[in-house]
Amino acid sequence: MSIERAANLSNPYRHLTRGFFILLFSLACIIQLHAQAITSPDKNLTLTFELKENGVPYYQLTYKNKPVLKPSRLGIETKDIPPFMEGFTVVNTEQVSVDNTWNPVWGEQKVIRNHFNELLVTLAQKDQENRQLRLRFRLFNDGLGFRYEFPEQKNLNYFIVSNEHTEFNLTGNHKTFWIPGDYDTNEYAYTTSKISEIPQLMEKATIDVHAQSPIKTLAVQTPLMMKSDDGLYINIHEAALVNYSAMHLNVDPKTYAMSSHLTPDAVGNKAYMQADTKTPWRTVVVSDKAAKILASKLILNLNEPIAYEDVSWIKPIKYIGVWWEYFVAGKSNWAYGTETNVKLTDDFTKLTPSGRHGATTENVKKHIDFAAAHGIDAVLVEGWNIGWEDWFGNWKEDVFDFVTPYPDFDVRELYKYALTKGVKIMMHHETSGAATNYERRLHQAFQFMKDYGYNSVKTGYVGKIIPRGEHHDGQWMVNHYIYVAKTAADYKIMVNSHEAVRPTGLHRTYPNWLAQESARGTEFEAMGGLDPEHTTILPFTRLMGGPMDYTPGILQTDLSYYGTGNQRVNTTLVKQLAYYVTMYSPLQMAADLPENYNRFPDAFQFIKDVAVDWDDTYIQEAEPGDYITIARKAKNEDEWFVGGITDENPRTTVIPFDYLPKGKTYVATIYADGKDASWNKNAQSYTVRKALITPKSMLKQHLAAGGGVAISIREATSDDRKSLKKL
Amino acid sequence: MSIERAANLSNPYRHLTRGFFILLFSLACIIQLHAQAITSPDKNLTLTFELKENGVPYYQLTYKNKPVLKPSRLGIETKDIPPFMEGFTVVNTEQVSVDNTWNPVWGEQKVIRNHFNELLVTLAQKDQENRQLRLRFRLFNDGLGFRYEFPEQKNLNYFIVSNEHTEFNLTGNHKTFWIPGDYDTNEYAYTTSKISEIPQLMEKATIDVHAQSPIKTLAVQTPLMMKSDDGLYINIHEAALVNYSAMHLNVDPKTYAMSSHLTPDAVGNKAYMQADTKTPWRTVVVSDKAAKILASKLILNLNEPIAYEDVSWIKPIKYIGVWWEYFVAGKSNWAYGTETNVKLTDDFTKLTPSGRHGATTENVKKHIDFAAAHGIDAVLVEGWNIGWEDWFGNWKEDVFDFVTPYPDFDVRELYKYALTKGVKIMMHHETSGAATNYERRLHQAFQFMKDYGYNSVKTGYVGKIIPRGEHHDGQWMVNHYIYVAKTAADYKIMVNSHEAVRPTGLHRTYPNWLAQESARGTEFEAMGGLDPEHTTILPFTRLMGGPMDYTPGILQTDLSYYGTGNQRVNTTLVKQLAYYVTMYSPLQMAADLPENYNRFPDAFQFIKDVAVDWDDTYIQEAEPGDYITIARKAKNEDEWFVGGITDENPRTTVIPFDYLPKGKTYVATIYADGKDASWNKNAQSYTVRKALITPKSMLKQHLAAGGGVAISIREATSDDRKSLKKL
Repeated sequence: MSIERAANLSNPYRHLTRGFFILLFSLACIIQLHAQAITSPDKNLTLTFELKENGVPYYQLTYKNKPVLKPSRLGIETKDIPPFMEGFTVVNTEQVSVDNTWNPVWGEQKVIRNHFNELLVTLAQKDQENRQLRLRFRLFNDGLGFRYEFPEQKNLNYFIVSNEHTEFNLTGNHKTFWIPGDYDTNEYAYTTSKISEIPQLMEKATIDVHAQSPIKTLAVQTPLMMKSDDGLYINIHEAALVNYSAMHLNVDPKTYAMSSHLTPDAVGNKAYMQADTKTPWRTVVVSDKAAKILASKLILNLNEPIAYEDVSWIKPIKYIGVWWEYFVAGKSNWAYGTETNVKLTDDFTKLTPSGRHGATTENVKKHIDFAAAHGIDAVLVEGWNIGWEDWFGNWKEDVFDFVTPYPDFDVRELYKYALTKGVKIMMHHETSGAATNYERRLHQAFQFMKDYGYNSVKTGYVGKIIPRGEHHDGQWMVNHYIYVAKTAADYKIMVNSHEAVRPTGLHRTYPNWLAQESARGTEFEAMGGLDPEHTTILPFTRLMGGPMDYTPGILQTDLSYYGTGNQRVNTTLVKQLAYYVTMYSPLQMAADLPENYNRFPDAFQFIKDVAVDWDDTYIQEAEPGDYITIARKAKNEDEWFVGGITDENPRTTVIPFDYLPKGKTYVATIYADGKDASWNKNAQSYTVRKALITPKSMLKQHLAAGGGVAISIREATSDDRKSLKKL
Repeated sequence: MSIERAANLSNPYRHLTRGFFILLFSLACIIQLHAQAITSPDKNLTLTFELKENGVPYYQLTYKNKPVLKPSRLGIETKDIPPFMEGFTVVNTEQVSVDNTWNPVWGEQKVIRNHFNELLVTLAQKDQENRQLRLRFRLFNDGLGFRYEFPEQKNLNYFIVSNEHTEFNLTGNHKTFWIPGDYDTNEYAYTTSKISEIPQLMEKATIDVHAQSPIKTLAVQTPLMMKSDDGLYINIHEAALVNYSAMHLNVDPKTYAMSSHLTPDAVGNKAYMQADTKTPWRTVVVSDKAAKILASKLILNLNEPIAYEDVSWIKPIKYIGVWWEYFVAGKSNWAYGTETNVKLTDDFTKLTPSGRHGATTENVKKHIDFAAAHGIDAVLVEGWNIGWEDWFGNWKEDVFDFVTPYPDFDVRELYKYALTKGVKIMMHHETSGAATNYERRLHQAFQFMKDYGYNSVKTGYVGKIIPRGEHHDGQWMVNHYIYVAKTAADYKIMVNSHEAVRPTGLHRTYPNWLAQESARGTEFEAMGGLDPEHTTILPFTRLMGGPMDYTPGILQTDLSYYGTGNQRVNTTLVKQLAYYVTMYSPLQMAADLPENYNRFPDAFQFIKDVAVDWDDTYIQEAEPGDYITIARKAKNEDEWFVGGITDENPRTTVIPFDYLPKGKTYVATIYADGKDASWNKNAQSYTVRKALITPKSMLKQHLAAGGGVAISIREATSDDRKSLKKL
């Protein structure tokens, strides 16, 4: 496999040497140009740049001659030095076309095509001794990416961004799938509304989330998914968020104008810059087909190639964990002691054991046994290390040391046991938001992992950030997450970060950063429940930036089973299976308790079988908030998996199999909702049936309200052909 | 030597087991006590505690029946929970007397006596479910220390200090030696004035210092030295500043009331606390003799014993450096390249060499040769590592990586060379204020030092702090400096921190933290000059908290010698020698250029001879702002050294030698100002003479304006007795 290499990360054209078609022409103009336009390779999109009155830069975007973005201003406000806002002239423009492919280490498809036309506009401010600013636009068939670039020059060295004025002026009152703008959390439920309705819905949407910092003015988060009345799907986000703060979107509910809202630091600044430098890419993915939004690789294409020489140690992971029992079973805790005030300097063997500690040697061994028996790669263990007695909400620096196990967790014994069983234990580093403490102890923590055979870590950032005054989405933390991922790579460790800033495609560059949380995941099913449509929105929003550790696979959906309350997971059992396909991630948890998988072995079989890495992906149908059906081919295997989900409405869908190689017969194992099933009644009713299919087969399948369908496909044996019926 | 051990840092009475006199009686009162008093062991000081109206705690202090502090309020304001300000009743008081001794690893004396009477008052707030607060007062013969203690209890766990209300209500309009209150720098020149004059002098006193944050209300820094009209010397400071922010003093120029002003963090909080916990000690050193202020070991006694098991590797150091040439010689730079915008990711071999880089292999070798030839322990090398081209003032995170030498600094070659010559190279870690970056790279940086034979590091914090919004004097940075010292100890590395919070005696606990800057030192002689009285004030102010790396020993005092300007060091040559005795430090630099020492070999002999560690110290005479004369006996050697300095006024002093063992004759080598010398004319005029002395001898000695005297003493040989005259 040809893996891209980062020989020179600063040269965006290093792939051109691979012999693809290049069109390069430079318009070295010293006169002012009034408007510059490029089209996408398929000519559907047109990007126009122009300077308006007072030399203010604007851009606009059309799709099939329909406006997507009206003229929208560009500009950067700075502290202490004059702003990059107006007084510009165009001193040069360059256009280039690029068409090449690259291979991700893991992903939804083995080959990704990077095909765009680029316009690079060099502007100068006469009043600032011709200080230059460059705007780089890349127009793909599926959308636009653009960024600000600040060349090193006589009068530009260090500067502070106090505000970014990038406008996204929408053309109408689109249907919008949004969560409130917040500097510290993405763990909100989605609201679907017209843009104009956002103000009246904002208070209700701003539900209580720990350590939240809702933006005080009207703002929503990216990736923001929208649909226009005339059927255009538009997604606004950013790519390659490095050394800059995360962008939210200010909303004007009357004009439908949106604009960048950067996350401030402790003293209100947005970013500290040193020329030569650049902002992240601002991205606008556009299509008249919702499926094409999900299929877009624009954000990945705008990220830099792999930063590592050796990636042989990076592998997708399927895992179980000592985790769900903390939320539902009521039988175990993260904490070992009953005390509510501990310090790392305490002698934890002197605490009063609650008798309900989850991460015991014995319990972890049981999980290792289960993983070994079922071919699961790894076991996540939370609550193994001292400090959990009062880890939460105290804005405390030294909550954890990441290297000291509780007295009943024998790290050495478990290292040996897991090794014998061929299972990995997944480390857990909850920081409680104290990033400084984590950085201080990071090398020792990673060395500890290497000493005891761990090769992956789930990091957590629950709580207010330390450095105090910084935010989860600010520049300092943005750099922190990347620092952790890069340092982990030095130890050949893979990372799954929770409560971090939402992803922007950086897993292309740092592929050991397998997945993130950064959204409302399964844990909320045990804390009030998720709306049945939630997971039909996530792929159009949060997942646009990168894989999510959603932790699906809850087969015991009725949580009253555990003897308390009347909570339920708001899906059918089968929908939980479908998630392994509809929500792409190279890191997939089988989140339910092993004992529940033992109760439903035929349903669990799908979780055991389903791949976590793919040769190719077929977005078969999709509508945000309503339904998604996706088929994928397992990486390097003649196996295919299909997942389909619906929102709170039942539906009947027709699933084709035309991607299968012709001339062969296949066995489809179909996991379907029971006839009486729905998300809130008989949710665990399901059927498993097998049938013979060919590429020409079509499956008409009923999905229950809040339900789904999951299918595994492999080539039929001669026995299959005898014993099974055609679909 | 018996070295104290920190078997149990949380028990302040662990020394009692050594069999000293103990008086312990507990007044377990459940009724409210109106006033409690203790006296110092010599009965000179009396501390009275009482609750006044509304249950507000007050203390007062008298010396020989004269009030030192009028009734002064005590209290702590908190965030989110009710304050510790009023509504108190006394639920218990305990008194204890302690008299023991301990041996510092290094210091001004081999044995330190710890002799105090203590009053521990337990208060409770009825309205807060009897929440308790303890006030611990320790009254020594030389002053008072007291602190707030917060026991762990049902309704007190985590809390935030929003304000401390500790008053120091002075009795009159004292003469005060002060610098402006500032959260980020101590590098001010001292102003001497009445308290009432501080407002009108504040603006002038707030001279320009890089990255300064002067307090906006009227405030001054500690250690604050005062003298009352009736001859009482009073010094206010703090001891054991750990996990809390540094205290400045609010000033009321009309009532002479002062009060604690804590350094805020990025969001305005003062300290994050977790019970069981305590504040630092607030200290008031009092005497009617100025010399006793300098002799006080109260601050050291209030610090915790040594935190390390093994201290054998901790040694005082005399050193030279590639340093002064950056300030005066005009021949060299810290930076290698001429560029003004670099990144750590740049290839520094591609920079344009200025040809004036100071830290070259060749130049360092010359310094190693000089150190080896003259018995100097170490050579400080600044500017050895990449990043100096634009290190200053950019609030930049990644200025330095601490492990990459410039192309012309061969770290491997110099390691071998220094090893051969028996000289250590002293590492330099300038952080540019980016403490986060330093912590991130600390382990690698210290490992690099071990790999290349470095055993001491000069750290620097020039610039605005990162985490942004934090201050040099805030809780986060206070913990940072201690973290660096403790981590350095793991690598057996000694630390000399510059631009850190001023010291509070923590070198007792962490004796590898040899010295700090935290004041205006010699470098300012090259940047406008220091007032001749400056160094007669420093021992009464900055040095009360701990040793200073003042970097004395400038023999070429006229800086126009280097061909530019008309600057001078504002002392005589001899005063520079006297500093090695008058300003105690276990880390003493011979700061001038080796070539200058070669020009004045007889004067340099004193610097070569003078000890850096002591068996005992004799403060012979002292008056803040005017003069200081100190004699010290070298550690484990029959050698004594005397230093005397005066301010801008010439004076004649009489120096006794009565501390010398009786029955022997000694040779005194007397380094004296030339008759025509003064700090601003003929400053380099000096004489060196030898004479025989006995314990009964008295030396009448003239000190020039801004001058000094330095004397080395050893036993006379028979040859000496023949060839030398009696004094």
